[in-house]
Amino acid sequence: MHLIAIGGSDAGISAALRARELDPTTDVTVVVADAYPNFSICGIPYYISGEVTHWRNLAHRTYADLEATGMNLRLDTLAKKIDVEARKLLVVSKDGTEEELAYNELIVGTGAVSVRPPITGLDQLGPDDGVHLLHSMDDTFALTKTLERDGIKRGVIVGAGYIGLEMAEGLTMRGLQVTQLEQLPEVLPTVDPELGAHVHAELERNGVTVATGTKVNAIEQTDPAAGSPLAVQATGPDGSDLTYPADVVLVVVGVRPDIELAAGAGAELGFKGAIAVDRRMRTNLPHVFAAGDCVTTHHQLLGTTYLPLGTTAHKQGRIAAENALGRDREYVGSLGTQVVKVFETVIARTGLRDHEAQAADFEPLTVASQADDHKAYYPGSHPIQMRYTADRRDGRLLGLQLLGHLGSEVAKRVDIAATAIHNVMTIDELSDLDLSYTPPLGSPWDAVQVGAQEWVRELQASPTTA
Amino acid sequence: MHLIAIGGSDAGISAALRARELDPTTDVTVVVADAYPNFSICGIPYYISGEVTHWRNLAHRTYADLEATGMNLRLDTLAKKIDVEARKLLVVSKDGTEEELAYNELIVGTGAVSVRPPITGLDQLGPDDGVHLLHSMDDTFALTKTLERDGIKRGVIVGAGYIGLEMAEGLTMRGLQVTQLEQLPEVLPTVDPELGAHVHAELERNGVTVATGTKVNAIEQTDPAAGSPLAVQATGPDGSDLTYPADVVLVVVGVRPDIELAAGAGAELGFKGAIAVDRRMRTNLPHVFAAGDCVTTHHQLLGTTYLPLGTTAHKQGRIAAENALGRDREYVGSLGTQVVKVFETVIARTGLRDHEAQAADFEPLTVASQADDHKAYYPGSHPIQMRYTADRRDGRLLGLQLLGHLGSEVAKRVDIAATAIHNVMTIDELSDLDLSYTPPLGSPWDAVQVGAQEWVRELQASPTTA
Repeated sequence: MHLIAIGGSDAGISAALRARELDPTTDVTVVVADAYPNFSICGIPYYISGEVTHWRNLAHRTYADLEATGMNLRLDTLAKKIDVEARKLLVVSKDGTEEELAYNELIVGTGAVSVRPPITGLDQLGPDDGVHLLHSMDDTFALTKTLERDGIKRGVIVGAGYIGLEMAEGLTMRGLQVTQLEQLPEVLPTVDPELGAHVHAELERNGVTVATGTKVNAIEQTDPAAGSPLAVQATGPDGSDLTYPADVVLVVVGVRPDIELAAGAGAELGFKGAIAVDRRMRTNLPHVFAAGDCVTTHHQLLGTTYLPLGTTAHKQGRIAAENALGRDREYVGSLGTQVVKVFETVIARTGLRDHEAQAADFEPLTVASQADDHKAYYPGSHPIQMRYTADRRDGRLLGLQLLGHLGSEVAKRVDIAATAIHNVMTIDELSDLDLSYTPPLGSPWDAVQVGAQEWVRELQASPTTA
Repeated sequence: MHLIAIGGSDAGISAALRARELDPTTDVTVVVADAYPNFSICGIPYYISGEVTHWRNLAHRTYADLEATGMNLRLDTLAKKIDVEARKLLVVSKDGTEEELAYNELIVGTGAVSVRPPITGLDQLGPDDGVHLLHSMDDTFALTKTLERDGIKRGVIVGAGYIGLEMAEGLTMRGLQVTQLEQLPEVLPTVDPELGAHVHAELERNGVTVATGTKVNAIEQTDPAAGSPLAVQATGPDGSDLTYPADVVLVVVGVRPDIELAAGAGAELGFKGAIAVDRRMRTNLPHVFAAGDCVTTHHQLLGTTYLPLGTTAHKQGRIAAENALGRDREYVGSLGTQVVKVFETVIARTGLRDHEAQAADFEPLTVASQADDHKAYYPGSHPIQMRYTADRRDGRLLGLQLLGHLGSEVAKRVDIAATAIHNVMTIDELSDLDLSYTPPLGSPWDAVQVGAQEWVRELQASPTTA
C-alpha cells in the first residue's frame, strides 16, 4: 500500500501522520512544493513581529520528527500531473527532473493561494520593490528581507481580515507606522460591524491608521525624493482620492483554492471553485481524496461552503487518511469557529451570523449583550461583548460572536458555544450547563449563560418575526 | 400569590429574582438571617487578601438593586418554624420580635454551615482567641478583626480544599507566614493526587509550609512569652507529634447542609443528611421547595449526591421559583464542575474521576496527558496537565481534570468538556469539535483534543479491563 499526500501543510501532513499511525506498514510519501514541511502558516505574523525568534520555530514538527514517523518527504518537489487511470503522479524536482510515482491512494492537499485583487501596478511590482503578498514561507522571507532594509518606516496593509489585522500588530511591534486599508465599511468583516468597530478602535489605540470604506486602485513607485518609494492610491468612502506613501505594501485580501492539479486530472469543482469532496473527503476521481484549503467544506449548519482554516485542514487530512486506508469516518463538519488576537483584544466567532442564518432558511434573532469575564470585585475584570444568534422558532443555537480582553478566556468561551451548536442545543439549554466558576475567572452564571438568558428575554419581549 | 424564600445567599436570591422576573405580580419576601443579602461567599478569600478593597464590593447586587426588582427583604431575621399545614413561617427579628408570615409557596435556601472537626479546644476557643471558621460575612469580619491586630505573623490553616487553598494564598498576600495542614495524603483531594502534587509545589513555591497526611488533634493557647498565642498540635504521617505555633488558626474542612428548619417541619432528608428534593426542587412537604447547599444534588452521572456549589445553588433557586410559580422545569443536574486558582496555578475538574466512575458502575479508563496551552513558538506558552476519564466499553466521556497556568484558559477549557459530557459525547467525538485556534491562544488541535486522542491511543494499546 503506497499512499501519496500532496502538500506539506496541515492537510497533507495530518493525512500522512494518521496513515502512519493507523497502519505502520503503509508506505507514505508526502510531496512538498517548498522546503518547509509542516510549517504553521498562522504563525507567520508572529515571526514578522519578532515574537517568534527563529523561523524554524514555526514548524509544528521538525523534519526529523516527521521522518521518525516513517513517512517519506519529497521536498522542493512539484506535483505536476495526476494520471488517474494508471494511478501515477508526475512530479518535478527543483532541478527539473521529472519522475512518475505510483500510488494506491492519493490525497490532494494543495491548499490555497493568495488572491491578487485588481490593483493597478500589483502585477508589475513585487518583493524587490517592497510590494508583498503573504501566504508561504518564501513570501515570509521576502517580506523580512524588505523589512530589514534601511529606512522602512511606513507600512500600508491592504485588507483587514485575520492576516491583515495580525500583520498590523506585527508591523507595529516592529516599529513601523502602519496604515490599514479596508474596502468594506468596517474592519474584520467576518464579524458584525458592531464588534468590528471595537477592533477598529483597538487598532487606533495602538497607533495604526485605519481607513475603511476605502478602495485601493493602484500601487505606484514614486520619486525616491518623495520620502517613501511607494504610494498607494485609493478612493475614500466619500469618493475622494487618497494617497498613502509607503516603504512596504502588504496585500492580504484573502485566498482562493489551489485546484489546478486536481482540475487538470478531471476533478469536479464545487463551491467557490474548490475541489468538490464528499464527507469522506473523496473527490469524484477514483482513489483520489482531497482535504484542506483546496476543497469545499462541509458546514454543520450550511451544508457545502468554502472555509479555509487550519483547524479544518487538520481534521480533513486525518479523515482522508482513515478512508484512504479503508476505514470509514465522515467529516462531521465545520462551524466556522475562528478567533483572532489584535493587540489586547480577542475576537471569536462560531456558527452563523444573522444574515448567514437567514440565507440558510433559519429564522434568526441576534441579541447583543455584555457580561464581565469574572466577578467585577476581583481585580482585572473586563466586559465581554456578545452577539448571540438563535432561531426564533425553536431557540436552536446558531451562532455566537465574542469580543473581549486578552486574558478573558474568549477563545475557549466561544468553544463552549461551538460544542453546544455541535450538539444541537437550544440557547435556553445553555443555562443548564454546569460551567466552572471561581471569582478570578468567572461568575456563577458564566458570561456565555448571561448572554443566552438575555437572548431568551429579548425573544419574549418581541416574539414575532421582524 | 406570596412566595417566601428563606436565605439571602445564591439559592434564595436567585429564586426571588426569577419569581419577580417571571411574574411581576408575585409578592416575594426573602428572609435573610444576617444583614448581607446576595453576598459572594466565594469572594471572601479575596477580601481577606486585600484584593477586594471593600467588603461591600462582595455583593453580587446591592440592597438597592435587589429592592428595585420589587422583592421584599427581611434582613437580620431568622426563620424559626414552618407550619406546613397552615402555610405560615414563624420568623424572629434581631430584637426578639416573633411574627408569622403567610405564604403560598415557600423556598428553603438555608445553605450550609461549617463543619467543626473533633479538634480539642475548638469548642472553647473562638475569634477573640484567633481561632476561626470561615463561611459567613460575620466570620469574615471576625477574621479581619484578628488579622488587623498587632503581631499577627503566623497563620495555620487546617484543611486544604478550595477555601483552604484560597486562604493560604490570601493570608500569604497579606504578609503572613502560612502553614497548611491536610489530613489526607495530598492537598486538594477533590482532584487526583498527581495534580494535587502540582498544587502542593505551587504552594511551597510561594512560601507556604505544607504538611499533608497530618491530623490536627488540638488547638491550645500558649504562654504569651512563647512568641505566638496559639499552638496547633498534630500527628504527622509517620505518627510523630508536631506542634505549629500560630497567631491565627483557620479551620476550613468543609460544610454540611443546614437542615434544622426544614427537618423540624418534617422534611425528608437524603444523601449526607441534606434535604431530599426531586428535580423540580420539591421537598416531600406540600408547597415547600428547597434549593442550594441545604439540599441533595442531582448529578447527571451519579444520580443523587451532595455537592454544595454556588453555580448549582443559582440554577436550583431559579428552577425552584419556576416550579413554585406553576411552570415546569427540571434541574438537569450537576457535573461537579469546579475550578480553583492557587497563586499562578489553575485547577479544574468536571464529571467523574476514576474511582468515582467505578463506584457508579462505569468501566473507566483514566489517561494522563499534557499539551501546550498555545503554540509553543508564541511567547508565554505553558503546558496543561490533563487527566481524562472515559468508559472503556463505549468511550463515553465521563470526566476531565485540568491543571495549568493562570492565563491558560483552563477554566473555560474544562467547560468544553462539561458541555460535551452534558451532551453524552464519546471522547473520540471530541476530535470532531470545531474549536477556535490562533497561535497565541491555542493549537490546531486544541489541548483538550490532544488529550482525548491520547486516551483513544491508550485504550487501543490496552483494550482490556485492568
